[in-house]
Amino acid sequence: MNNNSRLPISNDVCFAAIEQAHARIKDKVKHTPIFSSSLLNDWLGHEIFFKAECLQNVGAFKLRGALSFITKLEEKGQLPKEIVANSSGNHAQAVAYAAKQYNIPVTIFASDTISPVKAAATQYYGAKLRTFSTRLEADEAVQLASTKAGTVWIPPFNHVDIICGQGTAALEAFKEIENIDAVFTPCGGGGLSAGTLICAKHFAATTEVIGVEPAAANDAAQSLRSGKIQSLKQTPVTLADGAATPKVGDITFPFLQKLDGFYEVSEKHIAYWTQWLQHLLKLHVEPTSAMCMQANFEWLKKQKSKKRVLLILSGGNISAQSMQKIWAHDYLISPPMIQLDKK
Amino acid sequence: MNNNSRLPISNDVCFAAIEQAHARIKDKVKHTPIFSSSLLNDWLGHEIFFKAECLQNVGAFKLRGALSFITKLEEKGQLPKEIVANSSGNHAQAVAYAAKQYNIPVTIFASDTISPVKAAATQYYGAKLRTFSTRLEADEAVQLASTKAGTVWIPPFNHVDIICGQGTAALEAFKEIENIDAVFTPCGGGGLSAGTLICAKHFAATTEVIGVEPAAANDAAQSLRSGKIQSLKQTPVTLADGAATPKVGDITFPFLQKLDGFYEVSEKHIAYWTQWLQHLLKLHVEPTSAMCMQANFEWLKKQKSKKRVLLILSGGNISAQSMQKIWAHDYLISPPMIQLDKK
Repeated sequence: MNNNSRLPISNDVCFAAIEQAHARIKDKVKHTPIFSSSLLNDWLGHEIFFKAECLQNVGAFKLRGALSFITKLEEKGQLPKEIVANSSGNHAQAVAYAAKQYNIPVTIFASDTISPVKAAATQYYGAKLRTFSTRLEADEAVQLASTKAGTVWIPPFNHVDIICGQGTAALEAFKEIENIDAVFTPCGGGGLSAGTLICAKHFAATTEVIGVEPAAANDAAQSLRSGKIQSLKQTPVTLADGAATPKVGDITFPFLQKLDGFYEVSEKHIAYWTQWLQHLLKLHVEPTSAMCMQANFEWLKKQKSKKRVLLILSGGNISAQSMQKIWAHDYLISPPMIQLDKK
Repeated sequence: MNNNSRLPISNDVCFAAIEQAHARIKDKVKHTPIFSSSLLNDWLGHEIFFKAECLQNVGAFKLRGALSFITKLEEKGQLPKEIVANSSGNHAQAVAYAAKQYNIPVTIFASDTISPVKAAATQYYGAKLRTFSTRLEADEAVQLASTKAGTVWIPPFNHVDIICGQGTAALEAFKEIENIDAVFTPCGGGGLSAGTLICAKHFAATTEVIGVEPAAANDAAQSLRSGKIQSLKQTPVTLADGAATPKVGDITFPFLQKLDGFYEVSEKHIAYWTQWLQHLLKLHVEPTSAMCMQANFEWLKKQKSKKRVLLILSGGNISAQSMQKIWAHDYLISPPMIQLDKK
């Protein structure tokens, strides 16, 4: 990670493009609220702001990217006859919901590990669902399907309009909250991290932008260490299913290389923070989002002065099976605290 | 239940008193938002509005009553030197939090079945906690403690200022949403139900006000059937711990007798709706609140035209043990629906 060189920004991927994406989608998405917990702030000795994208339509920030993509096509007079997409869950729902606004038929290609509740939601929004034994097979099938005339593939992250759409969550937050010292995002394919990075650096070059991944699905961390995109060898087992993407994209990766930090989080810590954020914020926060709190916690422990940090709570779609795993142990008996004498 | 006779309203318990309570507390409580789920509305064929008191400070509407009580004392120049209260949980946190605003020491008297997370939160807010083997013993001990000079007991429900405070949640909702056909509240001691009843009937006499109780702690339902206040013989086992109060009060009971309906809900249905409301609303809704959806569901199934209903989501304080029980089975595979042909 190198913070001294410039971001790999073009006319297509830049702060102005995020603003344009926001102008196109703002009447179709929720301007989600910022949450905070006075108890948590007291315990940690810092100020933490949560952008509650779990309250976004379809329960995830992913709608921003999908709508950014479709509204760009609409602007160009190129709305397709059919849409296809591949996703482990939230992107599928987002594309299904977004396409429904335009009455365009959608088929979703997913691995059969897609959580039942995300699969069902996709279908409630009117999409056809095709499942495959692995995510890579689904990814290959969607590419084949997208070659049909009149069909457009909406990729989950590796596209300029998707990145700019995801960046609109941070745009709303940075317009609302000033003097943010650091912002944390989960990293699946890297679309949210890239969009957030562009946005944060526009408001203040000193704001640290930090990516977070499950240790059990750490392809991005591996890629950052080796300097080349690495792919997970098999379907990962992690509560943070939204960040279980097998590899990042060639458009998102150069942005990830400019992040100010990157953390890998254990499954135990993912469960711990999912319990605590659900409990303190009274929000049905999904593990992929809560994962960022462990990175934030570790980062805060190293700080020597009081900090203001922003977390993008990416979503709130959780299967019953995940809820059982999240709550299997009682972590509420161990409140998160940072000892003042350590600061 | 008799809807033809007038409510038992005095100068102390009336709509004007709820407005006065609101004026006293409105800068000290959150004006909580109204939530809805387009998916749920589609499935049920009605419009359902949720007043999200789980997002209230201390995670429950109970803060309204506690602050109404203390601000009334302040108004009269009678702030006490010490405060005591008895509660199964949310009222304890509310009193602790409210008294802290005035730097008044608090002792909470509870049964040792108080959920650990509610007990801990009470102590975080600076209260002393004394536990007893039964709720009735705790209730007796608090009465004894309150006889000490300079000490004031803040009762959980059976007091005019508490009832008027709890009624301010409905006040905010009825000012925001028009033409509500029915409103559902959980019934523990009856404070929220009474306050909501007074408020709803002020806006429209035709709005049905419906109380809801766990079948496993149905003292209010028994009392309504017999026409006399009945007490639970032993500590009930229910997920809806906020409605596990052993008996209603002599001030709240006459209001409960004027409700338009009263439902008793099974533990299975309480778990079912807690899962679904957490999933659809992305809120950490406690079982006591979600319980009302089963009553609402049964009521809606009987309606012949499209209705607009309001639910007061009373709180969001849930122990890890309760979360384990709530999510033990997967109810998300069975979406709630009302067949159109039945309407």
